[in-house]
Amino acid sequence: MSTDTPLGIAVIGTGRMGADHIRRLHTVTNGARVAAVADLDPDRAAHAAHGIDGCTAHTDPAAAMAAPGVDAVLVASPGPAHEAALTAAFARGLPVLCEKPLTPDAASALRVVEAEARLGRRLVQVGFMRRYDTGYLRLKELLDSGAHGRTLMLHHRHRNPATPPGFTDAMLINDSVVHEIDVTRWLLGEEITAVHVLRPTPSGAAPAGLGDPQLVLFETTGGQICDTELFQNCGFGYQVACEAVGERGTARTGDDHGLLVNADGRWGGTITPGYVERFADAYDRQVQRWVDATRRGTVEGPSCWDGYAAAAACEAGVRAQTTGARAAVELAGRPGLYR
Amino acid sequence: MSTDTPLGIAVIGTGRMGADHIRRLHTVTNGARVAAVADLDPDRAAHAAHGIDGCTAHTDPAAAMAAPGVDAVLVASPGPAHEAALTAAFARGLPVLCEKPLTPDAASALRVVEAEARLGRRLVQVGFMRRYDTGYLRLKELLDSGAHGRTLMLHHRHRNPATPPGFTDAMLINDSVVHEIDVTRWLLGEEITAVHVLRPTPSGAAPAGLGDPQLVLFETTGGQICDTELFQNCGFGYQVACEAVGERGTARTGDDHGLLVNADGRWGGTITPGYVERFADAYDRQVQRWVDATRRGTVEGPSCWDGYAAAAACEAGVRAQTTGARAAVELAGRPGLYR
Amino acid sequence: MSTDTPLGIAVIGTGRMGADHIRRLHTVTNGARVAAVADLDPDRAAHAAHGIDGCTAHTDPAAAMAAPGVDAVLVASPGPAHEAALTAAFARGLPVLCEKPLTPDAASALRVVEAEARLGRRLVQVGFMRRYDTGYLRLKELLDSGAHGRTLMLHHRHRNPATPPGFTDAMLINDSVVHEIDVTRWLLGEEITAVHVLRPTPSGAAPAGLGDPQLVLFETTGGQICDTELFQNCGFGYQVACEAVGERGTARTGDDHGLLVNADGRWGGTITPGYVERFADAYDRQVQRWVDATRRGTVEGPSCWDGYAAAAACEAGVRAQTTGARAAVELAGRPGLYR
Amino acid sequence: MSTDTPLGIAVIGTGRMGADHIRRLHTVTNGARVAAVADLDPDRAAHAAHGIDGCTAHTDPAAAMAAPGVDAVLVASPGPAHEAALTAAFARGLPVLCEKPLTPDAASALRVVEAEARLGRRLVQVGFMRRYDTGYLRLKELLDSGAHGRTLMLHHRHRNPATPPGFTDAMLINDSVVHEIDVTRWLLGEEITAVHVLRPTPSGAAPAGLGDPQLVLFETTGGQICDTELFQNCGFGYQVACEAVGERGTARTGDDHGLLVNADGRWGGTITPGYVERFADAYDRQVQRWVDATRRGTVEGPSCWDGYAAAAACEAGVRAQTTGARAAVELAGRPGLYR
Repeated sequence: MSTDTPLGIAVIGTGRMGADHIRRLHTVTNGARVAAVADLDPDRAAHAAHGIDGCTAHTDPAAAMAAPGVDAVLVASPGPAHEAALTAAFARGLPVLCEKPLTPDAASALRVVEAEARLGRRLVQVGFMRRYDTGYLRLKELLDSGAHGRTLMLHHRHRNPATPPGFTDAMLINDSVVHEIDVTRWLLGEEITAVHVLRPTPSGAAPAGLGDPQLVLFETTGGQICDTELFQNCGFGYQVACEAVGERGTARTGDDHGLLVNADGRWGGTITPGYVERFADAYDRQVQRWVDATRRGTVEGPSCWDGYAAAAACEAGVRAQTTGARAAVELAGRPGLYR
Repeated sequence: MSTDTPLGIAVIGTGRMGADHIRRLHTVTNGARVAAVADLDPDRAAHAAHGIDGCTAHTDPAAAMAAPGVDAVLVASPGPAHEAALTAAFARGLPVLCEKPLTPDAASALRVVEAEARLGRRLVQVGFMRRYDTGYLRLKELLDSGAHGRTLMLHHRHRNPATPPGFTDAMLINDSVVHEIDVTRWLLGEEITAVHVLRPTPSGAAPAGLGDPQLVLFETTGGQICDTELFQNCGFGYQVACEAVGERGTARTGDDHGLLVNADGRWGGTITPGYVERFADAYDRQVQRWVDATRRGTVEGPSCWDGYAAAAACEAGVRAQTTGARAAVELAGRPGLYR
Repeated sequence: MSTDTPLGIAVIGTGRMGADHIRRLHTVTNGARVAAVADLDPDRAAHAAHGIDGCTAHTDPAAAMAAPGVDAVLVASPGPAHEAALTAAFARGLPVLCEKPLTPDAASALRVVEAEARLGRRLVQVGFMRRYDTGYLRLKELLDSGAHGRTLMLHHRHRNPATPPGFTDAMLINDSVVHEIDVTRWLLGEEITAVHVLRPTPSGAAPAGLGDPQLVLFETTGGQICDTELFQNCGFGYQVACEAVGERGTARTGDDHGLLVNADGRWGGTITPGYVERFADAYDRQVQRWVDATRRGTVEGPSCWDGYAAAAACEAGVRAQTTGARAAVELAGRPGLYR
Repeated sequence: MSTDTPLGIAVIGTGRMGADHIRRLHTVTNGARVAAVADLDPDRAAHAAHGIDGCTAHTDPAAAMAAPGVDAVLVASPGPAHEAALTAAFARGLPVLCEKPLTPDAASALRVVEAEARLGRRLVQVGFMRRYDTGYLRLKELLDSGAHGRTLMLHHRHRNPATPPGFTDAMLINDSVVHEIDVTRWLLGEEITAVHVLRPTPSGAAPAGLGDPQLVLFETTGGQICDTELFQNCGFGYQVACEAVGERGTARTGDDHGLLVNADGRWGGTITPGYVERFADAYDRQVQRWVDATRRGTVEGPSCWDGYAAAAACEAGVRAQTTGARAAVELAGRPGLYR
């Protein structure tokens, strides 16, 4: 396609995340247009398409992908619908940005990996947006430079003011720690081989039945040990931070910054309330990079393999939560497509 | 115009700043396209237009503005050419984003103010991009909230590794301090009434004939006192910071942050090397906001009056440098168009 | 004794630590004098006593304690000599400041506990000097205030530029982690019930045979989980830090501070090279508080029980290093003397 | 005297500052004893001496200095009484630590300088305690190292929560800015040649008649320009900071630090409420260093010349406040005794 023609995108799923991506593509991203949307709820689909020139509304994802002017697909439907949407996109050879998780479990994720491997070329970028955060990018760059020698340990912090109703122990791993799983694999360039979970007496602010906080430990193929403080009802704000300990130095990203205020007997500043504020730039940058790469005819960013490996590590993490013991991560063989 | 049609923009001037804006409009900004470019150097104009679908190249700014599909103008030519370009845009009723300075001196800036006032509506946004920096925006928001009471003083820091060859004392005011002049007026919502300049013994790193650093002091209509450390050959990096002192608290923006590194016996991080890195987001945001407002049919941001008032304060600043005494700023009456 | 008469102190051991305490008592501490010194090496003892009015030199600790004007004892001899020195002090009813470790193992430490318990009153303060560091004191005060609710986790960092020759895995626990063991017990007011040790691939800078860094995990009677990054060959400096995670907030001590420097493209400052610089104030404050309490006729600070409990946790830590599994800490019953 | 005999000190003045010094000498300082006290109020003198072995109480400073066992004098009476006390000490050849100000005005300070110069040796250390603050000491060390080249500018901040009743504009200079005057002279090793004072519209929190805040500017013999934000009713705490701008780098001391807390949607920490907390260590260190030097038979620290030069700069500062113009500092010739 001409690099001057906007990329026509079918957005699958128009709930909270899908609607936000539609807004982004329509008003923030350069070189993209929303060409079609799909949602099981026809009213919601129509509402999402309203006011966007030439954007059609559908209830069937495959129909949206077949709409005129569609060059690529952004999958933002619930996780259980991802495998079908990806299969439809593969049938049409369309590049995809697929929100995380790739699929809800390792078995289905492996099927997607195998399907893409059969195609013989990558079509999918998985939505692990932390890889597009400026701080993490600078940390990655520093580690890759070798300035601090080999990386030995990672210390992650993942704090959230409060969990929504119905949040479970398994969701602590699948929805929250999955980010540290991806960041760990990406920063180190290693696979996670085992997970332990240590559970202190829960906070009084944790909902009944939820073991919050937890200390989640990873072992890697490179022999690194990584710990994550997961604290999802800390009350005071959203904090995501990572310190990488190398042989000759450490580097930390995620300290709050911005305005330094002196008032009321205190120095300091405000903590971002949630991931939307904390990672707004990362979401914008992720989508822009995907659009740019797609217009150039390339696929970059987190792959289906990354989505599968994260799913496998999550399954081990949930087992480790339940048993209190070290749980090994078992991975299938890595297809050549993913190096 | 339809909000779905990209805004067609004529870029006047394709030197360093113009070329960067063309890149931005073409690959970063949402909802815009470069429809025409103009440069006195026809080769440079042709080179700038190359590879952009439907973009025409011109040597005459007015011809570029008359090209098909031009909805708005971005003026990035040298300052002395601005008045003519603005006059041409006014003749066509085209909205303009005009790089600072509005014009090189207060007299010509006042002519532009009067011309726009005669039109009876605003067409021009002046390129004081610091108003679009996240830190300054948060500082402005805090001051406007009244949380710290009335603002009493501002402390500015403006440091640069080195000046280019041929930099003069007057350029210290006109090219560098002009940003503190605009930020002071904007943050406080007051005019600057007088300027003093104190000159320490220059740094050995200052080029012969340049009095660097300097301490530049402003008085305002609101009785505030603002100081600026201007140090353009500090060697160690680019730092722009501002602390606002209110009746009940202070707030500071511009501290370096990002990765915190421990290595080689030191904690800390790197300093941005220049304004491009420091204000990249501000430039992007400035242009996006201008495109968005223009597509909505409105004009926002710094006005011709802001450009004129800055020029008048710069003239006082250069006088104050020369005489060593307090120099009063004299402003013409403010047309109703600018409130 | 009159509160105006200086406290006469016998210093047992005049090696590096003993000599430093003699210097401190002689030139820094208020209300104390060195009345006698003892060292197996008579020349070293004589050298230590030289120039101090009325200070006698001995080779036998008991003789030093029996010297005229001795009101209290500071034990700074090697750990294996502590039990005998404490027994001699108990026989004379003399108050003691005993450098850590109380004794080299839990069995001998328990004998000291039982001997003091038989006396029916405390005589010993153990030299866990971190309890006298300003940062840890403020952290303790905050946790005790309940402002952040119950404490759930502690994150410790313990970094050192390099280990001396001959340093072993067991010494990582007994000489280094012992401080985190004491701080954990003191901050939380709980006993440590189990220790795990996770061992990443060692740094290339670690001497052959030393598994450095390590991640050491504690469980406590209160159900807290505490992690310690122990990294004794990090190269870049000495860093000891602790973050306490409570139900409603976290607090961290140990970030480097002091001068903030901009130079050479970097912001930041220097890292203290070692524990002498980092904890100089804590050593001074520890000794002054001990002298003040002793002159008032009271005993405060870390007790023999604290020394014993640390020894028991160290033994579990060394077991955990060897087995790779969780090692339980087994404590004898706590005598009433220690509440 | 034997270095093992405590230095016997007569404390002149037992008000707030005197009583604090008596406490310090009696319970904190090594190698000193309070041998006599003097106060115009005999009850207050007796109360101050109570409980200190061998300490006698007097109403006449000269009588206190003549008491048995007095080796040195600490003058903490009100400023107008200093000249007489110093004269009495000179008559007896006693070393003196004299609280600032040396005397209340430049004329009387010059008389003291001349009297000491006639003695032909220094007896007096003036109580500019900031020179003993760790942060300022490190800043001084850095500047003296030449690592940042020649110092070009200093930026001082001096903030206080509130002024006591009856505080006047002149006291802003004489009681507050006098510290920046001394620090500027000491850090730079230059004299202050002129003072300007800029006065913004006062804070609503300033008492009627007090122009608070003010911006006070110094010129120096070395051509440096130094600014001080003086804000004595800032409400939020006590902050004293200084940034030195050199040819190749800057360095700042005085940022608050200590515990970093996350709670209630904010990161940061507490601001010290007053100079007692902020400079506690500096007061202790100042007195210890004076006692140590006196026992060695030497006189160090800020001299009578420093006290006189500060008084002369204060007089210029008060003139500059009143006139709004630059006020030159006029100094007498420097006696050889002060190099």
